Amino acid sequence: MRASRFFISTLKEAPSDAEIVSHKLMMRAGMIKRIGSGIYTYMPLGLRVIRKVEAIIREEMNKAGGIELLMPLVQPAELWQETGRWDKMGPELLRLKDRHGRDFALQPTSEEVVTDVVRTEVKSYRQLPLNFYHIQTKFRDERRPRFGLMRGREFTMKDAYSFDRDVAGMQESYQTMFDAYVKIFNRFGLKFRAVAADNGAIGGTGSHEFHVIASTGEDALVYCPSSDYAANMEAAEALPLIASRGAATQTLTKTSTPNTTKCEQVAKLLGLELSQTVKSIALTVENEVDGKLTKENWLLLLRGDHELNEVKVSKVPGLKDFRFATEAEILEAYGSVPGYLGPIAAKQPVKVVADRTVANMADFVCGANEAEYHFTGANWGRDLPEPVVADLRNVVEGDASPDGKGVLAIERGIEVGHVFQLGTAYSAAMNCVYLDEKGQPAPMQMGCYGIGVTRILGAAIEQNFDDKGIVWPDAIAPFEIVLCPMGYDRSELVKAETDRLYAELQAAGVDVIVDDRGLRPGAMFADWELVGVPHRVVIGERGLKEGNLEYQGRRDPEASAVPAADMVAFVKGKLGK
Amino acid sequence: MRASRFFISTLKEAPSDAEIVSHKLMMRAGMIKRIGSGIYTYMPLGLRVIRKVEAIIREEMNKAGGIELLMPLVQPAELWQETGRWDKMGPELLRLKDRHGRDFALQPTSEEVVTDVVRTEVKSYRQLPLNFYHIQTKFRDERRPRFGLMRGREFTMKDAYSFDRDVAGMQESYQTMFDAYVKIFNRFGLKFRAVAADNGAIGGTGSHEFHVIASTGEDALVYCPSSDYAANMEAAEALPLIASRGAATQTLTKTSTPNTTKCEQVAKLLGLELSQTVKSIALTVENEVDGKLTKENWLLLLRGDHELNEVKVSKVPGLKDFRFATEAEILEAYGSVPGYLGPIAAKQPVKVVADRTVANMADFVCGANEAEYHFTGANWGRDLPEPVVADLRNVVEGDASPDGKGVLAIERGIEVGHVFQLGTAYSAAMNCVYLDEKGQPAPMQMGCYGIGVTRILGAAIEQNFDDKGIVWPDAIAPFEIVLCPMGYDRSELVKAETDRLYAELQAAGVDVIVDDRGLRPGAMFADWELVGVPHRVVIGERGLKEGNLEYQGRRDPEASAVPAADMVAFVKGKLGK
Repeated sequence: MRASRFFISTLKEAPSDAEIVSHKLMMRAGMIKRIGSGIYTYMPLGLRVIRKVEAIIREEMNKAGGIELLMPLVQPAELWQETGRWDKMGPELLRLKDRHGRDFALQPTSEEVVTDVVRTEVKSYRQLPLNFYHIQTKFRDERRPRFGLMRGREFTMKDAYSFDRDVAGMQESYQTMFDAYVKIFNRFGLKFRAVAADNGAIGGTGSHEFHVIASTGEDALVYCPSSDYAANMEAAEALPLIASRGAATQTLTKTSTPNTTKCEQVAKLLGLELSQTVKSIALTVENEVDGKLTKENWLLLLRGDHELNEVKVSKVPGLKDFRFATEAEILEAYGSVPGYLGPIAAKQPVKVVADRTVANMADFVCGANEAEYHFTGANWGRDLPEPVVADLRNVVEGDASPDGKGVLAIERGIEVGHVFQLGTAYSAAMNCVYLDEKGQPAPMQMGCYGIGVTRILGAAIEQNFDDKGIVWPDAIAPFEIVLCPMGYDRSELVKAETDRLYAELQAAGVDVIVDDRGLRPGAMFADWELVGVPHRVVIGERGLKEGNLEYQGRRDPEASAVPAADMVAFVKGKLGK
Repeated sequence: MRASRFFISTLKEAPSDAEIVSHKLMMRAGMIKRIGSGIYTYMPLGLRVIRKVEAIIREEMNKAGGIELLMPLVQPAELWQETGRWDKMGPELLRLKDRHGRDFALQPTSEEVVTDVVRTEVKSYRQLPLNFYHIQTKFRDERRPRFGLMRGREFTMKDAYSFDRDVAGMQESYQTMFDAYVKIFNRFGLKFRAVAADNGAIGGTGSHEFHVIASTGEDALVYCPSSDYAANMEAAEALPLIASRGAATQTLTKTSTPNTTKCEQVAKLLGLELSQTVKSIALTVENEVDGKLTKENWLLLLRGDHELNEVKVSKVPGLKDFRFATEAEILEAYGSVPGYLGPIAAKQPVKVVADRTVANMADFVCGANEAEYHFTGANWGRDLPEPVVADLRNVVEGDASPDGKGVLAIERGIEVGHVFQLGTAYSAAMNCVYLDEKGQPAPMQMGCYGIGVTRILGAAIEQNFDDKGIVWPDAIAPFEIVLCPMGYDRSELVKAETDRLYAELQAAGVDVIVDDRGLRPGAMFADWELVGVPHRVVIGERGLKEGNLEYQGRRDPEASAVPAADMVAFVKGKLGK
């Protein structure tokens, strides 16, 4: 590519609405242009990166047995109604009507359409397993689009769907996709981590997220440096920090604790460790029984220094549809304002769930259900009944790994991929069945597998940038190398050497751009450092008179002289070609 | 590709809603699956063809200086309001609202977005010319989607937009695109014709359509076999069939012509040639003057054997917004029921426009503005005033070519590409200006250039099929060649030879599929003939014992034996590789 025939448009300053580094750098490098809230034109430089990301995904998907098709963006409501997602999904599902008033959705994913394809096209066990995928524009009407391509509304995603005869087959398809994802993210040249994930609303029996590691990531990833345990914060199991409960040594004492609605304040006032306090979180669960609405009071107990994990709460039997109690509900149930609640002496019956650590505490402090009072010396069995015990808290650094092989660490990540075992959630709803060897119909076992193509760009930059700009990994850089001639239109020597090198690198399969725009060196270098092309060769008269060119890797502190005759081999070596 | 790892799903019968051959064959070959009205999933076989079409377009666009970007599908109404297209376009522009109630359109084309990109990114004459293109999903909410991919609602289009400093530059960009289109359609291996076209509603100063020739095509293409004149029916100029007007020889006579509302009936009744009759077509034009609606009566005169061309009518000064008169309006203006109208003795004032041929007629027959009566022997100047003269009719086979180099022929075509000179229609509306050498702002001169990617599939099939199925040209076939082993899982000899040939063809860059599904020969051959793979090699034990394989081109009446050792070279020769 010649820069004069390409379109490069860099900015000194990022627009003020760009909040994070990847968004700022993509705007400054001219990779994207905002058309509306969360809607972007991918400019020529940005599109080149997208195409490289797509090509790697496509190659590995095909190698893993994926079959590419292309499902439509505009999908009839009827299919979404079959699975109930038409009603279940919130306003992020963008709905529209055609000229005849019929309802459609802009696809955020394509489970319904692919299941419809398979139920009409596949009849026999002989046709299974199958894995269909497409790389297609998606739309998700985010309430607050932001962060450039990180949380856009229109974006590109690769979504794949596997269909199997049984659970074992589904698990095999799942593992195949997991392995393909590892290859894909390795080929991108990104540091990443696959973590076990909660299946969430999509249902099913197992899932993993793939995260690009970046200190700016939204998600906390839990992992064990001395084993292969890794999970996201929702799925990471928190073991009890106290191995077994000690004996009671104190008597239950109602203690005046004015102005101490937080455990930190109570501990300070009483001269205790925060880890001797217990915080109480009041929930309400509404049930409809025989058309009558009833309310249950639930109280969650967490050690004072721990954080609640709501996903874990929702898995406690009876708490699937919990909500936090209102102040009025609290007053009614506990007889106290919030800040002094506890499991002892509530006004109404309360179902108590203690975190695993709390369940093993002795002589603990908790609210007395009376404003400005706490109990000290509380003990299970003696002062209150044994609780329901559950894992309710976020793990913290240093927690024991659930696999018993060390302690947990936490790092930040950006979710860019997700693999799910769906089971029969969709196939049962849509009657996607096959006939088995005996001619009996059975619902297919499904999996689904997504990669956020355009999100990869943002995540890659969050992981790879410096104060000059982006630092693309070779595999997904818009160009692998830029040739910067010093005086392309002034020096015959420079022009001839540039053209020779350009032709030879192209012939060697290197994705090379030559900057023939005639810019001054400073502006030229700044452009390419901002754009993040990982390798650069400067062709100058002075060096050429000694037979040398100047090579600099984007991360190298300094340039180095390389004999002109060796440069092609040198670059190929750098690129591993 | 191995068929066992691919997805092939053919049908004996086409679904009943498939009306035309390409739709039927694509459904039967399993290339597309209908998801909703005018909305399809491109199945794996169909997607392969689409990708090949896209790759050819992309290569030639890049060679011609096009720069690829990707504009969004969901576009804010504000941009469409700037050019007025938000209001001007009918319901085929699918409009939608996001969760905040803001208006958006699903793009049918992207003039507004690309003009917005250029007006913010391009400031100086030094940055011009530019030609941006994308290959993207489009949506057009057709009132009556049909014919499969021919008139779908969601489809894929390549649209390019050129930006130049002046008209000469725009015309150069236009010619570059025209030439690129010729290369693209040649590379597809399709018979096509480029015809001059009317610019229509999009405005601008010149345009050509590219049509795939097919007897089933919707459009009539006019061309001169002895010159390079070619135009579509709207743009093809019809010369007068009578060089100069003869002298009057008859007197004007009101003649009883009962039950003759058609020229054919009048001619038959009176024993005249149809070419001596004139048909009268009544129009109404409404004008608002000072807030008051006024109506004008217009009468078009066409020779009895000619057909009206409405696009030509709309170009007659004063007739831009014409409509056909209602029966009530006709009675009021002419004092007669329809079928007996004419330019003589109307009740109200009527503006008469005669087709060029009618203007040169003498002693003609026309309606008498009285039921069951016609005038015979009518003559211009004597019986009625000289008319306004215009080209109002469709050309017919045998008409003189407007370039004076022969006579016109007509064939049918399917429009698959269109190139337009837009001028400043969009750039002026959106203030897309550049600063010229003197620092003066000037609007950019634009062109736009479309190719209907998915429509190409339908058009290619309409041109290339037989009673067995599709016959793809090599360049856009889903696979170039299929290997059909006779007993892949039974015969070691057959398997070994198949695997060798498969590996060697792949190494030679041939897009080959091996049918390892274990079907019987009849079913296997029928599948591939239906799918339309252009080359086939059968690997059988009998032939192999004599060292031969069997080759058959899709259009060949019979197979021929080719020595196994020569087959790779033979196939490469067939494919021109």
